[in-house]
Formats: sequence, C-alpha cells, structure tokens
Amino acid sequence: MKKVFLFAAAFGSLLTAQAQLQPSKMTPESSEIWSPVPRIVTPGGMSNAVSGFTAPSDAIVLFDGKNLDKWQATNGAAPAWTVADGAMTVTPRAGDIQTKQEFGDFQLHIEWRAPSEVKGNGQGRGNSGIFMQGVYELQVLDSYNNRTYSNGQAGSIYKQTMPLVNATKGPGEWQTYDVVYTAPRFNKDGQILIPAYITVIHNGVLIQNHTQIQGTTPYVGRPTIQPHGRGPIKLQDHGNPTSFRNIWIREL
Amino acid sequence: MKKVFLFAAAFGSLLTAQAQLQPSKMTPESSEIWSPVPRIVTPGGMSNAVSGFTAPSDAIVLFDGKNLDKWQATNGAAPAWTVADGAMTVTPRAGDIQTKQEFGDFQLHIEWRAPSEVKGNGQGRGNSGIFMQGVYELQVLDSYNNRTYSNGQAGSIYKQTMPLVNATKGPGEWQTYDVVYTAPRFNKDGQILIPAYITVIHNGVLIQNHTQIQGTTPYVGRPTIQPHGRGPIKLQDHGNPTSFRNIWIREL
Amino acid sequence: MKKVFLFAAAFGSLLTAQAQLQPSKMTPESSEIWSPVPRIVTPGGMSNAVSGFTAPSDAIVLFDGKNLDKWQATNGAAPAWTVADGAMTVTPRAGDIQTKQEFGDFQLHIEWRAPSEVKGNGQGRGNSGIFMQGVYELQVLDSYNNRTYSNGQAGSIYKQTMPLVNATKGPGEWQTYDVVYTAPRFNKDGQILIPAYITVIHNGVLIQNHTQIQGTTPYVGRPTIQPHGRGPIKLQDHGNPTSFRNIWIREL
Amino acid sequence: MKKVFLFAAAFGSLLTAQAQLQPSKMTPESSEIWSPVPRIVTPGGMSNAVSGFTAPSDAIVLFDGKNLDKWQATNGAAPAWTVADGAMTVTPRAGDIQTKQEFGDFQLHIEWRAPSEVKGNGQGRGNSGIFMQGVYELQVLDSYNNRTYSNGQAGSIYKQTMPLVNATKGPGEWQTYDVVYTAPRFNKDGQILIPAYITVIHNGVLIQNHTQIQGTTPYVGRPTIQPHGRGPIKLQDHGNPTSFRNIWIREL
Repeated sequence: MKKVFLFAAAFGSLLTAQAQLQPSKMTPESSEIWSPVPRIVTPGGMSNAVSGFTAPSDAIVLFDGKNLDKWQATNGAAPAWTVADGAMTVTPRAGDIQTKQEFGDFQLHIEWRAPSEVKGNGQGRGNSGIFMQGVYELQVLDSYNNRTYSNGQAGSIYKQTMPLVNATKGPGEWQTYDVVYTAPRFNKDGQILIPAYITVIHNGVLIQNHTQIQGTTPYVGRPTIQPHGRGPIKLQDHGNPTSFRNIWIREL
Repeated sequence: MKKVFLFAAAFGSLLTAQAQLQPSKMTPESSEIWSPVPRIVTPGGMSNAVSGFTAPSDAIVLFDGKNLDKWQATNGAAPAWTVADGAMTVTPRAGDIQTKQEFGDFQLHIEWRAPSEVKGNGQGRGNSGIFMQGVYELQVLDSYNNRTYSNGQAGSIYKQTMPLVNATKGPGEWQTYDVVYTAPRFNKDGQILIPAYITVIHNGVLIQNHTQIQGTTPYVGRPTIQPHGRGPIKLQDHGNPTSFRNIWIREL
Repeated sequence: MKKVFLFAAAFGSLLTAQAQLQPSKMTPESSEIWSPVPRIVTPGGMSNAVSGFTAPSDAIVLFDGKNLDKWQATNGAAPAWTVADGAMTVTPRAGDIQTKQEFGDFQLHIEWRAPSEVKGNGQGRGNSGIFMQGVYELQVLDSYNNRTYSNGQAGSIYKQTMPLVNATKGPGEWQTYDVVYTAPRFNKDGQILIPAYITVIHNGVLIQNHTQIQGTTPYVGRPTIQPHGRGPIKLQDHGNPTSFRNIWIREL
Repeated sequence: MKKVFLFAAAFGSLLTAQAQLQPSKMTPESSEIWSPVPRIVTPGGMSNAVSGFTAPSDAIVLFDGKNLDKWQATNGAAPAWTVADGAMTVTPRAGDIQTKQEFGDFQLHIEWRAPSEVKGNGQGRGNSGIFMQGVYELQVLDSYNNRTYSNGQAGSIYKQTMPLVNATKGPGEWQTYDVVYTAPRFNKDGQILIPAYITVIHNGVLIQNHTQIQGTTPYVGRPTIQPHGRGPIKLQDHGNPTSFRNIWIREL
C-alpha cells in the first residue's frame, strides 16, 4: 500500500496524463492468478444402486450419444464435431458448437473426458470450455498433474474464480460437472442489478458454491458487463480432442 | 388486505389488548403450507463409469455400513439404531442419534430409504430428518404418492421452504441427498448477521438452491433465532424404520 | 427436540390423521415473535450542510407535500387522506392508498410521523405500513417506549424479520426510512427463483441489511408465495392518524 | 470468441509455452474499465427537521472535528494530517492514516470534500480512498465533470465495480458516504467461503447495492485473496488535500 502511494505521488503528473488514455492492450498473462493452488481431492467412486446422473423426467436431453441434432456451429452451420461410441468429440479447428435452444436459469449435467493420450501442458492439454448462455466459461481442462494458473484450471470460472479444490480425474476418464446457474438481471442502464451465480459439483465434489460471475470471461482482458437475454450452451473448440457425453438441462 | 384492515379496525380495542399477551399456543397445523404442490420429477438412473457418490479423499466418512462408531444418542449414550446389510435403520422410540463430531460449513452426502412396506400416510410414512448443526431439519419422508403439506414433504426445510420439485423415489429404493450448507453468523446481540444457506440435490435433481434458512424448524411454532456454534449432524427417530447409508461430509 | 419427538411418537396415529386436514385457522398471535427485543439506539441529529434526503434528479417524487395526484384508493377511487402542512395523514377508515404507478426494483425515501398525542399501545399506537409492490409490508408504528412483538415493531418486515435495533424517535417527530428493494423473480411453477431483498436505514441507522423477504406479510397466517409483476407503493390505514411526507423513489 | 479461438489455435504452441511462465507485470491501465459511464444524478438537498447523519447512540465516533486521537499513521506513528474548522485534511505525502481500533462488520458514515480549487484531472483531482478493514478501497475522487475510468471514479470499489450512477457533488462541497459492510469469511485453505459485501449510499443516492468485493483493490494488478481478520478504517493520502469530517461507525 505504502509503495503504491509513493509511486503514485512521485509520478503524479504522469499518472494523470495516462488516465486520459484508453487502456493499453493487456496480455493474456495479465489476468492469470497463480496462487493459491487449489488442493487436490481424489473423487470417490460410484455408490451402488442409486440415482443421479441420467436425465430426470423434466430435463431436455441435449446429447444422448447418438447425434448432434440439438447443436449447431456458432454461425448456424451444421456442427462438425465427431460422434462415436456414445460421445461427441471436438474436431480441432472445426470451431465451437452451441445448442440451438437458448436458456435462462438452469441445472445442467455434463460429462467430459480429456484425451487419454497426454499431449501438451498447461492450457494446451485437454482444453475446452462450457459457456453459460454462450457467454460465461466454466473451464474444461486436463488438470490432473498439470499446473497452470489457478483461475484457468478445470472447474474455474475462466480467469475469474478458481475452484475450491482440484477434483480432476486422470486423462481418458469420464468426469462429471453438475451445474446450477441463475442468469444475471440487468437494469435499463446496462448495469448488473442481480448478478449471475453458479454452483458446480465436479465428480461429486463441490468446487464452486454460489459463486458470483463478475462478467465476461475473456482470454485477454477484464470481465466486462454486456447485457443479454437467454443464450445457448456453448462448447469450446480449443484445439484439443476433448469429448462430451450425457448432457441434459433442466430449466429452473 | 382490505378485509384484514376492516377486521382490525372493527376490533381495534380487542386487538390492542391481545397484543400485550404472550403468543397463544400454536397448533402443529399453524405452520403447514399446502400450496403450491411441487410438481413431480422422476429422477434419472445411473450413468455408467463416472464418479460421484462415494467419499472423496478429503471427506470424513460418517457411516460406511459397518458400525455406528461416529454416532451417539443425543444424551451421549450409545446409539440404539440397528446396523445390517450396510445400512443403519431407525429403531422406533430409540431416539435421535447424532455425530460425535461437530461441524460448521460443509458438503454432505447421505443416502436414505423409506421402508418398502408402505404403512401410514402423510407425515406418518417413512418420516425421519437430517439436522444441520443439530438444529435445522432437512425433511426425510416417503413422499412418493403421499400427499402432505408442501413444506413438510421430502426435501423441504421443515415447515419453512418446500422443495422446488418432488424428486422422491418409491418406498424401498435408495435415494440420495447432496447438500451444501454454510452456517449462520450471529452478532453480539444474538441476531443473524449472515444467514445459513442450503443447497440440496435429491436423486440428482436440484430441489433447494441457496435457500436461506430462516431459523429453527420446530414441529409447533415459528422459526426462531438461537445463536449457536458448531454442531453435529443429527438423524431423527420419528417412529418409522427409515434407513441410511453411505454418509460422508467435507468441511468447506 | 426430544419433547417434540416423544409427543409425536405418543400421538403418532392422531398426527397422521390430522396431517390429511387442511390447516386449522391460525390466530394473529401465532405469527408473533417476542424475543429477542431489539436494543434501543437513539438516532443522531442532522449534520450541517450535507445532501441526502430530498429527491435526487432521477427520482420520481411521489408526494411533495401539496397533493395526492400520484395516489389512489386501492379500488381506484380518489384517495380520502388529508393533506395539510406539507404532510399527508391517514383518515382512519378511509382505507389504504397506493401509487398509480407500479414499480419493480427501487430505492425509496419516505418520512413518517406517529401522532404526537399518544393513544393506545402495542399495535394500536401510530400503526401504519408501507407495502413494497403492494404486497410486502415494512411496518410503521410508534415503537418509542411501546412494547409489542419484535417482528411487529417499527422497521420490521411484518411478522417476518424484526429490525436489528430499535431506532424509533418519539411520537410527533418526523422519521426517515431509506429503503433499497429488489423484487422477487418467480419461475413458471410459481415458485421463487430469486427472492426479494430489502435494506432499510431508519433515521440513519441500519435496521435491515439485505434481508430476504419470505413471502407475503399477513396479519393472520404464514408468509405465502404469490407470483406477481410490478406493483405500487401502498400505505396502510390501520386506524391511526399517522402522517407521511417527502416521498420519492428511484427505479434501479 | 471466434477470433480468440483462431488466435489461440494459430499460436497454440506459443501459448503453451507462455502458460508456464509467471504472469508478466501488468500496467495500471490493465485494470481500468471505461465503459459504460455511470449516468449523472444530481443529489437532493436536505429535508428539514429529520435525523440521520450525526452519530447514533451506539456508534463509535472516529472523528468529531477536534482531533485525531482515534487515528495513527500506518506505521503506528502520530498521524500528520491537519485538523482545522471541524475537518481533517490530507497533508500530501504525509502518508495514509488509519483507526487504532479494528473492525469486522459495520455501518460507517463518513463525509468528504474535494478541494474547492480544481487542480489536475482524472485520478489526479481530489483523490483519496476509504479502505474497509484496511484492505478494500471505496474510491474518493472529485468525479464532478472529471472523466476517468468508470471503476476508478468516486464511489467505485476501486478497479472492481463502478458505481450504479455518478452522484458526485462539486468541488468544495461536503459529500456523504453511508456504508454497510460485512467482512469476508475465509476457510482453512485460505479461500473465500463467504465474500465481503458492501452497500454504499452517496449523497443519499444508492451507488453500490450489496456488491460483492472480489478481493484486494490494487492500483496495478488483479484482485487477490488474502485471508485476514479484523482491520482498521484507513484513509488514503493520494497527494491531494481532500478533507473528511463527521466519521462514525457502528459495529453490526
């Protein structure tokens, strides 16, 4: 605090001049947070004979393992991801895909799998993402023995809030996200009146508890506020052949 | 509103006199809410080969199917419930049991089963309860084809907040509650400064979303505010042989 | 807890029968909470030469001391309250009045005065109320040396949440409420998805801090959930000549 | 989104390498948000004969216009700010001052005045700040006809959340902040379990409504999470002779 003050005092006139400028271009690293490192939790296995993960009766099944009928490319074209063995898999450079239907407040179940063949590291390993209303990214990444910035690891609200713990399973294993999301409410000035909140359970372990979403989740730059209405579930092509299956959503 | 006013105006002097009295005894029915009736959702089944329901590595296993070593009667005596086939079952009139350990903020997984032989109705069928910090009851009840007051059915914060939907499975079937709970913070005046919040997923279906707990959950009377510190997980003996298994907790 | 259990066990069959009935009629006293008693805080006086209480430039002035043009009876008729000396005063038995305009989320400033001649006691002294969206009552009462149930004194969310402290000024003195209110959001099932919240500063003293409103605020019975859209500011005729002035609102 | 993807795909190997590095140094501009610009609201004047702004009976008076007995420099030395005419004024380069007493949850009233002689612009005009628990800055700035980044103008949570509107009065005029603050609760992992929240009324106009504080409020860099206990109210020396008066606090 003290140092900041002295710096500000010493360069007061310079600061004043700078403050009139538009912000300079940020680098991607500007919005990385590396500390603390969420501690590792090994998820449990499956309990016998209980319910829980396939679609309840009031859910909209977004992907049942057979086809991408509920999905499209972000430009409206047919989605160019592959479907095989009950899973959909990113075709690198085919682009993001999103649901045709748009949603407000919801519960979402989704399962994902990082490639069993480990390639790359940091953000380059098993990277994908799930965007609430097409805007707010819940990170998908192979964060098993793969250090990156904490607010960019699996289960983070990308470049905002790191997960409480790291409950990631190994590459090639199916993982679950159970998400509860309530959409932001904007006022007529375009400001947030009621923020968006998200709760995430990863492989049965709580990693986000009613976390307030601060705004957009850009790769470069700060969260910003952009009023919007309903939006799709969007899945990211980040160049890695990450897979998804058993996706369903319940409108709240 | 209008009628209330006229009533108040007409009997003003009487009301004034009554207002000096301590509240009269409430009946149990005074705190029942019968409408709306949460709509029925049939939970999904199990997805193959995923994680989720057995204890993660940082959990405290409260019951693993073998013994009641982590439990005691509310008077500190040995708990008189039965353990068989990997489950613990209420011995009617043996009294409530609670964990020896006390907790603040936590994630709790618990599985429960109403008796397969259907006996009684309303609050008399498969009734039990799970008390957060020994105080706030999350209702356990066989609410499958069994109408009762909405804020008393399975998944309600008892006599406060009904579940969003009714995701109860049939008698004799194992059911799951996944609970996220943050404890209330009281100020020095004994008032609530930060309320307790609870999120509950029942058989994979969201039924309470960051629900504020208003106070105690008595059978007769209103929620009241009673400052407390950490407390146990308490399970209720309500006279029905309801069973529990696979209970674990993670401190947040 | 123990006693409740024993009671329930002993009369189990009776309870089961009762639970099939609709709730019996509650008495007004059923929803009174008498303990704790909010401690008394004497508000400060006025600081010199500051801003704060008259309408900001973006406010809608609901009452400027001259006329009731912005108000009507709840049946749409002309409001029969009196206007004199810059204040409006309840004409007992003339009925509630409410704004012609309806509101969602807002900041509200309102000043009120209990009659300088002290008559009656408890709920019978200087009683009125301010209803958010025509539904949720913020209590107005002469709570200066006038004991009543805590969740019915001045500044309570009526029969729900007592004020943090009692900052009431004496009879005949003008008092201020500064209110921040965000409206509830309901889902298509008619349940509350996002609750209403209210913050109240009474004579400069915080008495409600982001308090969740549980439902309606009836004189007899429990809070209930009734979906609604925008609604008026309603002022209550409770049979006492309470006065109001300087009322303005800002839509958020 | 699309462009980000293409960028990421094109430079994938480079990104992977970068992601292993510690974050590069941010510039001050990296955390500025310039849009939207909060609309201007002209505050109202004073209502006659009401209470509100001087200390209630349960408040701790931190500054009554006479001396700095309750304050110290951040290194514990005597505070070198000037006291005259019932106000304390920053002595530029004398450093920040803070209360000797530390606080948790509180209501704070504080009045401030930017210099009547307008000098500098942007962040260089009438700049100071009020730090909750010594950590989280509520910005003080002459934001009257003085454009700067929106999350750095008067009433912003510095470099986090801009005020809902701009209710700043002119240079040389006394202004009020009425603040409600609840402290963050950290867990044993050093993560935020319950965030800090702040509500701010500026000159009678709501500008922050239960705003979640995301972390520290640095001049350069992102909000970070640093567990702490109680802390002082700290006032910033930012090199401008900004004044304060009538400061009181109520512990909640």
